[in-house]
Amino acid sequence: MRVREAVVTPVAFPDPPLLNSAGLHQPWALRAIVELRCGDGLTGLGETYGDAPHLDLLRRAAPALTGLDPFDTNGLLRRVRTALGAAEAPDRHGLTGAPGPERTTLKVLSPFEVACLDLQGQLTGRPVADLLGGRVRDEVPYAAYLFYRWAGHPGHPAPGTQPPAPLPDRDADPYPEALDPAGVVAQARQLVDRYGFRSLKLKGGVFPPEEEIEAVRALRAAFPDHPLRLDPNAAWSVETSVEVAERTDGLLEYLEDPTPGIAGMAEVARRAPMPLATNMCVVAPDDLPPGFGARAVGVVLADHHYWGGLRRSAELAAICRTWGVGVSMHSNSHLGISLAAMTQLGAALPELTYAADTHTPWQGGVDVVADPLPITDGAVRVPDRPGLGVRLDPDALARLHENYRRCGIRERDDTAYRARFEPGYRKRRPRW
Amino acid sequence: MRVREAVVTPVAFPDPPLLNSAGLHQPWALRAIVELRCGDGLTGLGETYGDAPHLDLLRRAAPALTGLDPFDTNGLLRRVRTALGAAEAPDRHGLTGAPGPERTTLKVLSPFEVACLDLQGQLTGRPVADLLGGRVRDEVPYAAYLFYRWAGHPGHPAPGTQPPAPLPDRDADPYPEALDPAGVVAQARQLVDRYGFRSLKLKGGVFPPEEEIEAVRALRAAFPDHPLRLDPNAAWSVETSVEVAERTDGLLEYLEDPTPGIAGMAEVARRAPMPLATNMCVVAPDDLPPGFGARAVGVVLADHHYWGGLRRSAELAAICRTWGVGVSMHSNSHLGISLAAMTQLGAALPELTYAADTHTPWQGGVDVVADPLPITDGAVRVPDRPGLGVRLDPDALARLHENYRRCGIRERDDTAYRARFEPGYRKRRPRW
Repeated sequence: MRVREAVVTPVAFPDPPLLNSAGLHQPWALRAIVELRCGDGLTGLGETYGDAPHLDLLRRAAPALTGLDPFDTNGLLRRVRTALGAAEAPDRHGLTGAPGPERTTLKVLSPFEVACLDLQGQLTGRPVADLLGGRVRDEVPYAAYLFYRWAGHPGHPAPGTQPPAPLPDRDADPYPEALDPAGVVAQARQLVDRYGFRSLKLKGGVFPPEEEIEAVRALRAAFPDHPLRLDPNAAWSVETSVEVAERTDGLLEYLEDPTPGIAGMAEVARRAPMPLATNMCVVAPDDLPPGFGARAVGVVLADHHYWGGLRRSAELAAICRTWGVGVSMHSNSHLGISLAAMTQLGAALPELTYAADTHTPWQGGVDVVADPLPITDGAVRVPDRPGLGVRLDPDALARLHENYRRCGIRERDDTAYRARFEPGYRKRRPRW
Repeated sequence: MRVREAVVTPVAFPDPPLLNSAGLHQPWALRAIVELRCGDGLTGLGETYGDAPHLDLLRRAAPALTGLDPFDTNGLLRRVRTALGAAEAPDRHGLTGAPGPERTTLKVLSPFEVACLDLQGQLTGRPVADLLGGRVRDEVPYAAYLFYRWAGHPGHPAPGTQPPAPLPDRDADPYPEALDPAGVVAQARQLVDRYGFRSLKLKGGVFPPEEEIEAVRALRAAFPDHPLRLDPNAAWSVETSVEVAERTDGLLEYLEDPTPGIAGMAEVARRAPMPLATNMCVVAPDDLPPGFGARAVGVVLADHHYWGGLRRSAELAAICRTWGVGVSMHSNSHLGISLAAMTQLGAALPELTYAADTHTPWQGGVDVVADPLPITDGAVRVPDRPGLGVRLDPDALARLHENYRRCGIRERDDTAYRARFEPGYRKRRPRW
């Protein structure tokens, strides 16, 4: 059984106007769906970023995969590496790992590796978690991902799009504006009521730290038993970070990426009362020796999309176990293939002791899979079906690809999008 | 498909009088053969140490494995951990990793994990290498393992054995005495002629360093193109190690465990011109942060028997890759199940850039498998058969178990054995 064809399809799906330290989510989020087709209806699925430079690299790698044995993930890496050469995809928004040829290779490798494991599972009749050592939990807990947000996208057409990019249907986004502690608590209540989340993460770095500390305090008051996290995406200086850390002592299970860089994080870590987590300063293998050597982080947010797939993420978890560092899981806006992959991985990692991040509730039920895994009681039940446990819905894929074709967005740029409505807005890290 | 029964059988096989820094190999080497029987003739194989304390722990763990899904190696670890509690097997000879409950758990885990992977391979029709990411090489190179040695075992019966322990048949051991450079070169020639080895490793720590340096020089003269290694098993002080390192500059691909402990190795590493390798100071996960942090070693000899099996050894290789440390492979006296496991692992590890150690030539063709993998041109061809690729020979297992029953040895003790012939001999590390 060999791969006959690797197909890469860019898609777009509605994304609410969520705020972060880089700007504002655009109306459409991009992803790329990967299919490894082996004939006779046997197809392995993967999902990754849909930004144009990344898409170009996926499309450069895809033809090299014809003839691949899905069990030969070492061979997959060799093929991807050869196809890419020293190519590099920029990461202008700084939220999907870091640049560099090896890091780019791991990002391109990831969806194909996931698709290979999906195939292996289907071929052996086993869920992917079994191929990763067996499930240590039947349900993988996820955290409610709280965002400061606007009520809706302003009605501006994206510049240069022809025809003008349609805006998503507002009805699919039932969450109101959230720009202060009360709004954040109301959003948390809405998400907890609907999905049963048992952990809460606030995306910060949007308002001055004082306001975000107030939001954390309001969350603690409203949800006394929910572990809380705050993630300002490196919006703060070292001194600001230490001050916020001291003022949120006892409130946070971890403080995520308060400040940029390993050196800054290490300085904050020395002085902060809670562990620091990261998906920004330790994001690739070559960050591990300096990052762990400097004790910059207490928790790594494993994200298989840039760590090179599920096996490499399991390796990362093993490294974290060995160095006494905790493991959580990061997410960008994603669809149901990624949710399934994260769930299979999370099921097999004894080291994952924190609820994982997911943007799923923000996607309003839009998906490319026919049978998206539901979030119930704050967790996703690990499917017993072979492979990832989800099937592609070809009609949905076509619809979301049509979105992509028409939406006019080819590269995520939260900063420029926000600047359209707030002239002069620019990304600054640190900002406070 | 579940494990119905885990069977542990101790065996003994003839071992020549090989010298090392701890003493002299006894006439019989001990191993334990593990069978995970699933019914209908489906059995997974593993092999490990046969010393009495380890055997006790294997037998304590075995009943807990009934009902195990062979894909659930996470569950295997939980069962082993629970069965052992805080039990600990001493390692009096210091050649099989290090003591401590977690290290003991990994040692007990290993043969069962290998057997699970053998089962997974048989169930999926795939060689174990495929389950570890696919083979990156079709042949795994091994090094000739040169030993100073006596011609034969003195004819003393082992004390306290009833009936007196039989000595192995001398005819099965075609290698003469080797106690000086000429003897070492002659042994190397014999092994290279027979097996085609392309790398040579000398077990040192037996004679004063000056003599062993001479042996290395003689090997270099006789084999100008063979990479050479010297392994005195921590017989030297830091100063002696540095002196030997300087005097063998340009002769060795690595110097293995010249001196005891991470601190001593780090000091030697700072001053030695060649990388240091280890199977003595970085032998368990909790050695990795201090060992790599101190840059004590440039090469880790992965040994799945004490690193917790094949997947954990692959994790170790990933850690080495990440920290820029090389990977080679260590061996104790072993039989064909271990050779197959080492070969499957070696086939799947891109990081294994050195020829692996093996004692196979010293075992004189004795084995428990019906189809031992041959060493040709210094390498073992990776079998295409599902699982490990070897089958148990029940008659051979019975014969080797009978050896065990009669040989009188229950725990390896090279030091006491040598002291029987050289009263006053004792192990000293460092000795020079």
